[in-house]
Amino acid sequence: MSDRPAPLAPELDALLATRREGCGMPRALYQSDALYEEELARIWRGGWLFAGFAVEIPNAGDFLTLTVGATPILVLRDDGGAVRAFHNVCRHRGTQLCRKDSGHLRAIVCPYHSWTYSRQGDLIACQGMHEGVDKSALGLKPVHAEVVAGLIYISLAPTPPAFDGLRARFAAAARPQGFDRARIAKTMDYEVESNWKLVWENNRECYHCTPCHPQYVKANFDIYEEEFASDAIRQKMAASVARTQSKWAAQGISITHTHGGLAPFPDPDRDLWYAADRTVLVDGFETESTDGTRVAPLMGDYPDADVGVLRMRSMPNFWVHGSCDHAVAARLTPAGARRTRVRGYWLVHQDAREGVDYQLDRMLPFWHLTNEQDWEICKWQQKGVDSSGYEPGPLSQRKEYNVDAFIRWYLKQMRRA
Amino acid sequence: MSDRPAPLAPELDALLATRREGCGMPRALYQSDALYEEELARIWRGGWLFAGFAVEIPNAGDFLTLTVGATPILVLRDDGGAVRAFHNVCRHRGTQLCRKDSGHLRAIVCPYHSWTYSRQGDLIACQGMHEGVDKSALGLKPVHAEVVAGLIYISLAPTPPAFDGLRARFAAAARPQGFDRARIAKTMDYEVESNWKLVWENNRECYHCTPCHPQYVKANFDIYEEEFASDAIRQKMAASVARTQSKWAAQGISITHTHGGLAPFPDPDRDLWYAADRTVLVDGFETESTDGTRVAPLMGDYPDADVGVLRMRSMPNFWVHGSCDHAVAARLTPAGARRTRVRGYWLVHQDAREGVDYQLDRMLPFWHLTNEQDWEICKWQQKGVDSSGYEPGPLSQRKEYNVDAFIRWYLKQMRRA
Amino acid sequence: MSDRPAPLAPELDALLATRREGCGMPRALYQSDALYEEELARIWRGGWLFAGFAVEIPNAGDFLTLTVGATPILVLRDDGGAVRAFHNVCRHRGTQLCRKDSGHLRAIVCPYHSWTYSRQGDLIACQGMHEGVDKSALGLKPVHAEVVAGLIYISLAPTPPAFDGLRARFAAAARPQGFDRARIAKTMDYEVESNWKLVWENNRECYHCTPCHPQYVKANFDIYEEEFASDAIRQKMAASVARTQSKWAAQGISITHTHGGLAPFPDPDRDLWYAADRTVLVDGFETESTDGTRVAPLMGDYPDADVGVLRMRSMPNFWVHGSCDHAVAARLTPAGARRTRVRGYWLVHQDAREGVDYQLDRMLPFWHLTNEQDWEICKWQQKGVDSSGYEPGPLSQRKEYNVDAFIRWYLKQMRRA
Repeated sequence: MSDRPAPLAPELDALLATRREGCGMPRALYQSDALYEEELARIWRGGWLFAGFAVEIPNAGDFLTLTVGATPILVLRDDGGAVRAFHNVCRHRGTQLCRKDSGHLRAIVCPYHSWTYSRQGDLIACQGMHEGVDKSALGLKPVHAEVVAGLIYISLAPTPPAFDGLRARFAAAARPQGFDRARIAKTMDYEVESNWKLVWENNRECYHCTPCHPQYVKANFDIYEEEFASDAIRQKMAASVARTQSKWAAQGISITHTHGGLAPFPDPDRDLWYAADRTVLVDGFETESTDGTRVAPLMGDYPDADVGVLRMRSMPNFWVHGSCDHAVAARLTPAGARRTRVRGYWLVHQDAREGVDYQLDRMLPFWHLTNEQDWEICKWQQKGVDSSGYEPGPLSQRKEYNVDAFIRWYLKQMRRA
Repeated sequence: MSDRPAPLAPELDALLATRREGCGMPRALYQSDALYEEELARIWRGGWLFAGFAVEIPNAGDFLTLTVGATPILVLRDDGGAVRAFHNVCRHRGTQLCRKDSGHLRAIVCPYHSWTYSRQGDLIACQGMHEGVDKSALGLKPVHAEVVAGLIYISLAPTPPAFDGLRARFAAAARPQGFDRARIAKTMDYEVESNWKLVWENNRECYHCTPCHPQYVKANFDIYEEEFASDAIRQKMAASVARTQSKWAAQGISITHTHGGLAPFPDPDRDLWYAADRTVLVDGFETESTDGTRVAPLMGDYPDADVGVLRMRSMPNFWVHGSCDHAVAARLTPAGARRTRVRGYWLVHQDAREGVDYQLDRMLPFWHLTNEQDWEICKWQQKGVDSSGYEPGPLSQRKEYNVDAFIRWYLKQMRRA
Repeated sequence: MSDRPAPLAPELDALLATRREGCGMPRALYQSDALYEEELARIWRGGWLFAGFAVEIPNAGDFLTLTVGATPILVLRDDGGAVRAFHNVCRHRGTQLCRKDSGHLRAIVCPYHSWTYSRQGDLIACQGMHEGVDKSALGLKPVHAEVVAGLIYISLAPTPPAFDGLRARFAAAARPQGFDRARIAKTMDYEVESNWKLVWENNRECYHCTPCHPQYVKANFDIYEEEFASDAIRQKMAASVARTQSKWAAQGISITHTHGGLAPFPDPDRDLWYAADRTVLVDGFETESTDGTRVAPLMGDYPDADVGVLRMRSMPNFWVHGSCDHAVAARLTPAGARRTRVRGYWLVHQDAREGVDYQLDRMLPFWHLTNEQDWEICKWQQKGVDSSGYEPGPLSQRKEYNVDAFIRWYLKQMRRA
């Protein structure tokens, strides 16, 4: 099977065509194993994926791994200090090479027959092979890797789509957050019992925040689309925006998303699969914590707490919220038509000391609870769309414009030649 | 995918045709996922299913749930006191609405975005939606529901088959048992590792009772088909029949199944998918208990213990045995080509008090053991029919006429246009 | 479905054709459910399988069971003392008859309806059936069985391939080991999370022994193919060979595999699916134990410890290593495209007493560790070949000639008309 997508099979194309405009997607789109395989080929092996943070692998030989569908990937810092990525399988018999989530290695030695690869991915030893084996043709299969603002992106595509747009936008937006020199305070791995698209649909609206996320809505203005914001709310937002703008104009900390509701993302019409914006928190919330008070020292370049919250995201597998004192990110990987893995990351200033400068039991709850609430939603969402009685309903034009945008973006990727 | 069955695919039709008359069914009929999906569409979403007892939901807003294949159903008592059923999925994004087995609700509020439905199933609130959303078109999808003699039946079919026959028969037969005002003393949920048809085939003969159900055969005459009954057995049965008939003639407690062996059911030739009959217990057994003595106060309208045992059943998912003092029912739901869920119910008189009038540890064993023996049979039956060495053998014309009838009923449903 | 393979479906044939000469096999060959079903039909139900040891069932009525794919088999000693095998499913409704791994039975009584078969497999009672049932046509379906040198082989093929070659070779080679009168000291059941072919590929080379089996390589010369043996190694081997030859010439204990590296097996060109050879152990190793000292009394006819090690194997499911004092065997059975069951056997002299003449904690580790190391390898091998980034690499002509031979043997079986 080549990894370069062939034209979509007519029956899958017909399946995609069953989506009615303005509504959710039909049942089979969340169930079909054949469609899932095509999604892996077209979206997950066709675009750019967030793989982790560069600070996870600070030194030459440090590595992290991830598995996209059934494809294991190795990301490591090479001898020159660059971040590289490879297929995490031996070129000999195909054994998975590195089995741990992260670690350090002097060389990549296959545990099976000791084929040995340099940190640049070159096959440097394969003792026991016959004469005439061309080592130069048996280096680890490279995976495209890019680093921007401390975020590692990889692409499994033979010829990846352009990365320049994301690079420019994220570099500017993320600079003051300091991801490139942060400390990972905590990671948590979640298994979500749903199709990965349901995870995104849930992420792309805050219509559910009032019923489902009581903590979250206290800190954020996301539920106040124009129609739902009272004058009082609008005035509060405007005051916060003005305060921050006046302080940090031109320092990259200016508020770019100045009204309530979620910023539009993705944008299938303009092929925008990444976005970054900064918005304000509710007065009384210096950060996304349960009581609104800071849970760690100021992060990155932030001069004080009055920086709102930075939000970045990229299709199909990344989002992050950055407060003045910490940031929380999520990395999605699909693990079957009805299973998605999510790694959650909590980041703080590089010098912050656990137990001294921050307490995990104060920092984690806000997003850990929000995460768990969302995964529970996704589980019951999968059970519901699996029903013979499920019929996609209308999406709220006021509150679910981004769910519609996600669906249109998804369909466009799948139909791309 | 429409729920209205299209013509059966030629390869499935050919599969059904491999059954040899007088024998069991070939291997693939217990394995095929494609066939299982068609069974869900044609039989499970085409006919009437027992859903539970009306006494489980006595008051407006009380509900129970069940899942048929992957289709979750909500059954509830509406404001007018009627029993209604709905697809248990939100008309908005499809989330499963009620997640508990049973409970009480004032309105049906979707946990995701708070869309709110009345107990009549009407969408009464969907705050956050745009102008122009037609609430009247977004009520919960109704599922046909009927109540007869305290039994709730539902049908997922757009136009269900006639229910009148079952209604008339069950209303008459079940009246004295008092299901409509009974108390549920216990429910037990079982997972059977076999195709649902194997559960029925096992249920439709008592050929296995002597080897497998040592308790059961002490109480019942089921193993004595004409050929296997001695004169002594025949005289015993006749005496019991005469005694009961003379007492209760014309009160609906008369014995209708007067000889040994199972009463014929189902009847594919006459399209009879339900049946009710009353037969006698072995002398010394007032009820289906391990020692034959009563385990609860008299139930329903029964004037004394001399009422034999009422048996009712309906395809594809219900059977019940009613003794003078308690009744035991089973509700089947398929959960995959090799998995069937069974809920067992134990019912007693509405005023009986646990620990005072009845003890669960005396009441449960007779049928709980019989159930567990049957599920163990079904598990090994599935393992056997999965074998490449399995070849359907001859059914006993003396003892397995009902297995044959079940198979013919099944094939007829599947081939129906 | 007939068990006689129809011509291979064109898409599977095309799949097999994707294997490049000299390399491993492509991904889909380790994943495809359709291919797995064909492997069951062509290889597992087409050839001869090791089923167990005759000493496991010494007396009439003793039985053992195994399951090949989803096909349960019963192997028992009949009234005449012969070993017979049958499909372990009732000819009536197909229930699996014997459910235990081993045991003793007077007759084979189906637990479901008490159909009773003699130990010769004849249906001798089916009380409850109607007149005219032809018992003689309803005996247990026989499975071909052969015993050679204490090893039981079965074949599910209607007309099995010739067994004479294996019989002659194994009878001669295994005689001195005394499998036919040994004691089973221990069996262990393993579940390997990989395709059965990966288990064989791992077994067919000792290229991995240095990195993976530190104990094993101390005792054996397997890693010393001609190119890897120093003069010192060669001299050691030659001395050991000479010593053993001079002692036991013409007693069947002569060393037939006199050099390092694995003896060639299988041989697809000569259709050799079985092999037996004897080789020497490293000086200081009297047996395959962790410290090289004996762990049990001498076994079989061995006059002293200087007998090297006997190795026998047959496709697709058996290998054994016999030392002077004990032997360790493995029986494979496939349990899905990504799951293989392995039973390990440890055998000793028939009179050896556990705790007195041998200690399990001294005997087991050498091979139990080697086994567990191999199953771990196989698991990561499966994960690797499941990757979209897996591309079959070159096999070492020096060290993996037997992996290549296995692959060619496999492809030949699958393509056989």
